[in-house]
Amino acid sequence: MGAVKSKRLPRAVREQQMMDAAVQTFGQRGYRAASMDEIAELAGVSKPLVYLYLNSKEELFTSCIQREAKALVAAVRSGVEPGLPADRQLWAGLRAFFTHTAENPDGWAVLHRQARTHGEPFATEVMAMRDEIVAFVTGLIGAAAREAHHDPALPDRDVSGLAQALVGAAESLAGWANDTPGVSAKEAAATLMNFSWAGLENLMHGRPWAPRAQVAARV
Amino acid sequence: MGAVKSKRLPRAVREQQMMDAAVQTFGQRGYRAASMDEIAELAGVSKPLVYLYLNSKEELFTSCIQREAKALVAAVRSGVEPGLPADRQLWAGLRAFFTHTAENPDGWAVLHRQARTHGEPFATEVMAMRDEIVAFVTGLIGAAAREAHHDPALPDRDVSGLAQALVGAAESLAGWANDTPGVSAKEAAATLMNFSWAGLENLMHGRPWAPRAQVAARV
Repeated sequence: MGAVKSKRLPRAVREQQMMDAAVQTFGQRGYRAASMDEIAELAGVSKPLVYLYLNSKEELFTSCIQREAKALVAAVRSGVEPGLPADRQLWAGLRAFFTHTAENPDGWAVLHRQARTHGEPFATEVMAMRDEIVAFVTGLIGAAAREAHHDPALPDRDVSGLAQALVGAAESLAGWANDTPGVSAKEAAATLMNFSWAGLENLMHGRPWAPRAQVAARV
Repeated sequence: MGAVKSKRLPRAVREQQMMDAAVQTFGQRGYRAASMDEIAELAGVSKPLVYLYLNSKEELFTSCIQREAKALVAAVRSGVEPGLPADRQLWAGLRAFFTHTAENPDGWAVLHRQARTHGEPFATEVMAMRDEIVAFVTGLIGAAAREAHHDPALPDRDVSGLAQALVGAAESLAGWANDTPGVSAKEAAATLMNFSWAGLENLMHGRPWAPRAQVAARV
């Protein structure tokens, strides 16, 4: 395979260029509409070279999903600094998430829109990433609850539900922020922090919302 | 077409039975794996009758998406009673949503999982429903903010972002609730209400979360 090196670039660099072109094309045009010709042209290589390196459109798309998923998970993980108070950790994680999705709109479109709307095996790839992020957020909320309580007063199932709510809200907001001109990553993160933090903090301190008490207080 | 009436059931009733069978089959087995044979058998009719009434697997799936989307939107709308305080309206809307998705897990799987993961034209159908729900929630949050402020102090863009966050969180929780044994619709609604209400209420009263103030208060 060493003989296929083209010009002076090492294979790994070439592959990254092809993947960059593929993420851009898949993200903007969709999986079906994207052509291997277009991807090769954007990467500045011949179509046979793309096939030689990355095998097929399906395998190329799968590689794009895997690369973008790994990058997103890494961005969120590295955004959170253990040791900070819980709200600061959450804020840092949300900022890292929305900064990454704003800076990589094509990558986010591949993960959130394209990978889910073209069936298997792509949907499974992206669900694995989602499960990893939910597990990470579950850990953050669980740790914050223990910090607040010094005992596990917030049941595991509640923590799981809150993590699902937070991840679903973040996914929804990332698409909206990228589609709405002028919405910054910081603004999207602040929207979600405003939306969720007061509720999370109340729960961690054992102050759930109660329908009857609210009504009584208002009537 | 009157000649195709089978046994004593009118066509509309027969069609609903076929659609019920189709939603169950598509929801549980997925669009690709579902067979028209299986759907016909479950509906207690012949396969040619399914094709005669509903044309093709693709059209049948599209009809299922449309029917389930309409039912879900109607359930949420009818759950909300205008005139209640904002938190009660939101609570009623969330209960209606989670009750509907819990009672119709196959319909929800068709809308949230199957319709999105099998490309066009299905994804477009379900996005239209989502846009309608987001618009409805945007209206609720906007009305609640006006009620709290008596002036439009919460900008439209913030209201849109909050609606996106709430709908994304609800979608995510509905899937989780249906997949997690023992989580009731009321529990899922309470999780989301706890998660979101305190934050929404703070925003409506002009008390956003502030990173620095929080840190100062904690250090």
